[in-house]
Amino acid sequence: MTIERRGALIGAGLLGSAAIAAKLIRPATAQPAIPATQAPGFYRFKVGAWTITTVHDGFFRRPVEGFVRNAALADVQAVLGASFLPADSLAVPFTITFAQKDATLVVFDTGNGVTPATNTNGKMLANMAAAGIDAARVTHVIQSHFHGDHINGLLNAQNAAAFPNAEIIVPAVEWAWWNDAGNEQRSPEGQRPTFANTARRFAPYAGRIRQIAAGVEAIPGITSIAAYGHTPGHTIYRIADGAEQMIFLADLTNRPELMAPRPEWQIVFDFDGDAAAATRRRVLDMVTTDRVRVTGYHFPFPANGHFARHVSGGVQGFMFVPADWSSAV
Amino acid sequence: MTIERRGALIGAGLLGSAAIAAKLIRPATAQPAIPATQAPGFYRFKVGAWTITTVHDGFFRRPVEGFVRNAALADVQAVLGASFLPADSLAVPFTITFAQKDATLVVFDTGNGVTPATNTNGKMLANMAAAGIDAARVTHVIQSHFHGDHINGLLNAQNAAAFPNAEIIVPAVEWAWWNDAGNEQRSPEGQRPTFANTARRFAPYAGRIRQIAAGVEAIPGITSIAAYGHTPGHTIYRIADGAEQMIFLADLTNRPELMAPRPEWQIVFDFDGDAAAATRRRVLDMVTTDRVRVTGYHFPFPANGHFARHVSGGVQGFMFVPADWSSAV
Repeated sequence: MTIERRGALIGAGLLGSAAIAAKLIRPATAQPAIPATQAPGFYRFKVGAWTITTVHDGFFRRPVEGFVRNAALADVQAVLGASFLPADSLAVPFTITFAQKDATLVVFDTGNGVTPATNTNGKMLANMAAAGIDAARVTHVIQSHFHGDHINGLLNAQNAAAFPNAEIIVPAVEWAWWNDAGNEQRSPEGQRPTFANTARRFAPYAGRIRQIAAGVEAIPGITSIAAYGHTPGHTIYRIADGAEQMIFLADLTNRPELMAPRPEWQIVFDFDGDAAAATRRRVLDMVTTDRVRVTGYHFPFPANGHFARHVSGGVQGFMFVPADWSSAV
Repeated sequence: MTIERRGALIGAGLLGSAAIAAKLIRPATAQPAIPATQAPGFYRFKVGAWTITTVHDGFFRRPVEGFVRNAALADVQAVLGASFLPADSLAVPFTITFAQKDATLVVFDTGNGVTPATNTNGKMLANMAAAGIDAARVTHVIQSHFHGDHINGLLNAQNAAAFPNAEIIVPAVEWAWWNDAGNEQRSPEGQRPTFANTARRFAPYAGRIRQIAAGVEAIPGITSIAAYGHTPGHTIYRIADGAEQMIFLADLTNRPELMAPRPEWQIVFDFDGDAAAATRRRVLDMVTTDRVRVTGYHFPFPANGHFARHVSGGVQGFMFVPADWSSAV
């Protein structure tokens, strides 16, 4: 114990005169606050021989109002309130799923990419570094869909390939839609920038992009599952080893606290809201019945858990149950 | 990118001859796995001007069988299963709550203390270091009760005071019970070691231990609340600043996934199971009605959230809803 440390003492009357002297020469306010920083945003668990790491890319805040297209604001706020989320402002988190087995290192979607340091999103690279994950070692980038928050991270700060050694695997349906300018007028106005952004973000990977169908093995142990609606080719992925499995749900839901209890709610980012809702109910029913562990791109960090059936407000829906956090991987 | 990194490439046919050469001289299996370590176990949030930090002290595993005294094993397993927890083995986590404001740094309970490195518990000091919390700067240790996993950390590896500059604040009822050898025969057999352990763990703090009643301000902003039953003087604490508040629930519940849906269940560590159950229902009702944020000693890390009313299996109980994790403190 140093004299400096003793400066913070209270109840010094119980202590020796040295401590009292220290207190006199060093006011209590000299004690610095403990840091205001959070622990790095990554979390690991095992699926058979796969090591899954979820890596946080930060969040953005938007108004609750206007987010759900087909529900009254008060109803949306009531559902958020049941999960103790604020009524006015919605924090939409981004968390990327990595899967590693032997020499294979897969990343599912690539985050918001390089953002100004003051942004609350764009934290993936810092958290990858904390997690010991080197982008140069990624062997496969597997994309769920082509919205900007999922593909912008394909480019690094120099607008070159952020994953210089990876093969890029994309859903063929998604690739076809956003690479045909003839579809632009058939797309919701808010999604039209996705055409140019797709061209730009994939450009450095020309010659090593592989299109896959739904229901096929993308690489050994990882299978694509069609989950169309949120975008024309939105695809989720099953990661399996022996009897163990999990599913990366991508944007099957936005925040599950909001959308699992009301699967029919449609959000402003849905390309085809009706199809997205039908897909959501079908897939949530499947993962609930199978009790399969899932990760989700907009789930609350560490963004992994299960779904259970749940009735609220008279609606038969689902509830997200975060998996137990363990200090042992 | 170094040659070493290129050693892990697959799909090298898409790349230049240098990469192919590197692949030939360095097998893919040379790629190391990403680390199997977890991020440090600490989490921060604000309660008015208080910075709250929860710090993980690891966990221990015990059989599910024999943990709940007054319920059938199958019923216990069904409740655990509803939260996707295993049916055979229960991981009991330990997470310590710190509260810092200006020069005041409080720790609520002190963890399992120094344990063998191979133990899954006793990780508090490492996680405190990661969180930037120096035990020598703690100004107040406030104890909920005197079970070993809550007071063993009062001693460091040299059996001296682990918090050398702190005042120790204890519930007077708890202090009186475990410091009167005449109570030993009136205590459950499993709890009798607590008498000797209490004497040993508090010994280095003689002269700076302050006993407090329930319902009083321990220090400005922190108020004691009687929650007797789990031990004779088990006490919880409200931490407030202006209109903001939270409550440290200590061992009001063990794992809330198990005990919130069935508040009447009594566990093997309860001193007076009936009193513990009555206290549990009363306090859970209070924090649910008030929608107050809580921390709990055996809650799933990061061990903070809220309670909601919840009916399951025909029983009107409660459900723990973890607070949203945010990278912004």
